[in-house]
Amino acid sequence: MIVIGERINGMFVDVRGAIQSQDPEPIRDLARRQQAAGADYLDVNVGPAADDPVVAMQWLVATIREVSDLPLAIDTTRQAVMRAGLEAAGGKAMINSTTGEKKKLDVLMPMAAEFGVPIIALTISEQGVPRDANGRAEVALNILAAALEHGVMPDSILIDAVILPVSAQQENPGHVLETIRQTKMLSDPAPKTVIGLSNVSQNALYRELINRTCLTMALGAGLDAAIVDCLDDELMDAMITAELLLNHQVYSADYLKAYRASHG
Amino acid sequence: MIVIGERINGMFVDVRGAIQSQDPEPIRDLARRQQAAGADYLDVNVGPAADDPVVAMQWLVATIREVSDLPLAIDTTRQAVMRAGLEAAGGKAMINSTTGEKKKLDVLMPMAAEFGVPIIALTISEQGVPRDANGRAEVALNILAAALEHGVMPDSILIDAVILPVSAQQENPGHVLETIRQTKMLSDPAPKTVIGLSNVSQNALYRELINRTCLTMALGAGLDAAIVDCLDDELMDAMITAELLLNHQVYSADYLKAYRASHG
Repeated sequence: MIVIGERINGMFVDVRGAIQSQDPEPIRDLARRQQAAGADYLDVNVGPAADDPVVAMQWLVATIREVSDLPLAIDTTRQAVMRAGLEAAGGKAMINSTTGEKKKLDVLMPMAAEFGVPIIALTISEQGVPRDANGRAEVALNILAAALEHGVMPDSILIDAVILPVSAQQENPGHVLETIRQTKMLSDPAPKTVIGLSNVSQNALYRELINRTCLTMALGAGLDAAIVDCLDDELMDAMITAELLLNHQVYSADYLKAYRASHG
Repeated sequence: MIVIGERINGMFVDVRGAIQSQDPEPIRDLARRQQAAGADYLDVNVGPAADDPVVAMQWLVATIREVSDLPLAIDTTRQAVMRAGLEAAGGKAMINSTTGEKKKLDVLMPMAAEFGVPIIALTISEQGVPRDANGRAEVALNILAAALEHGVMPDSILIDAVILPVSAQQENPGHVLETIRQTKMLSDPAPKTVIGLSNVSQNALYRELINRTCLTMALGAGLDAAIVDCLDDELMDAMITAELLLNHQVYSADYLKAYRASHG
């Protein structure tokens, strides 16, 4: 699985404080620790509170680059911040994210082509989040059409089936699992699939248990990537074990140790 | 999920000792504890060491019945032991198990019809365990045909896709997941699906982690029942959480407590 570490996000108090006080050490620390825990990408989101989000994104990327060469998932809804992040990251990056809305696709697909980077695309249309898996697959098809039009290959697209809190939308995780299965059959080569995992457990007790259970089921359905708290050891244990059972990692007695030795 | 508690099995030292010394208390204790932990069925297997397996089965069933009215999964490959167990259980039972071999189907399907009980059927043919999911689905179809011939309804059949140790057969769990998905589409009403979970982690480190990760993925693929160690609290937490995410249990804040209050 492609592990996208979620922690460098201005929604978290420690990151917001570091951005506001221009204190690089908490950011460096999160970059180092997530890389050591097995992150393949680091998500970078300045959060809602940054005074100048372009400057904040440039500072975050430069600070991360002092300690890590991992590719970065530039996480913003603002076009100028996205461009600033992609430029600062020097090509080792991913766009997080577009939706299936035409006005976003028309801007972000050309940007993915220009920088030669993968792009996360949420299955949200002008009408919002479709109610079921068929509706999401339809939006995914529109996204793939826009990608081809702009010269982005399907396997550079990561379709995000939009996971909602189980506390509020209990039928949602089932739709997400079905969307993952359907998405893998939409084209050949197939697009990749991704979820923003932690959202599933918003406002719930047993957040870590809900997160790792959801991730495990999604991997069984064919999930390729997830934005996760990779500092949660039990989550990573579950992910590594699912990968073992799916034959994505060669068996060895201490397969957890073997995985961690070959990542991070 | 239909939870079939695996612990009353003569393969375990404590159960073997209890059978040999005709000591009822360890058996009663396992029956009580598994029922309290949420078992829907109790598996009953005399193991290989019983002097007279018919007498041992009758004694086990009678001993369990002193403390529990749960239906019993009579677990034996011997016809006389199966009949003795079903009779002793007084109709609240399940046959565990037939295979897809004609000589077994010809005996055990009529027995399922005679006692009016569900039957677990392993996807094993005269040629052994099929290599992949398509081969297993073919055996499952033969099993369904034999069931119909003997007047057993498809939803009284529990197709077992035969999970093998990941330490030895790493491609097996993926085939099992695919078999579960395919089996749910074989007929309408569909047969149920079941796995004998603990086998997946034979000879492995991290047995509990492997078991609960495998069970979670199988539930995501549509699994209906599993033979498990329901005394493993973390396994049950994962199962209950998967059921919540699949919308099989109504959400409440402390859904673990709510599930346990309504079971066992």
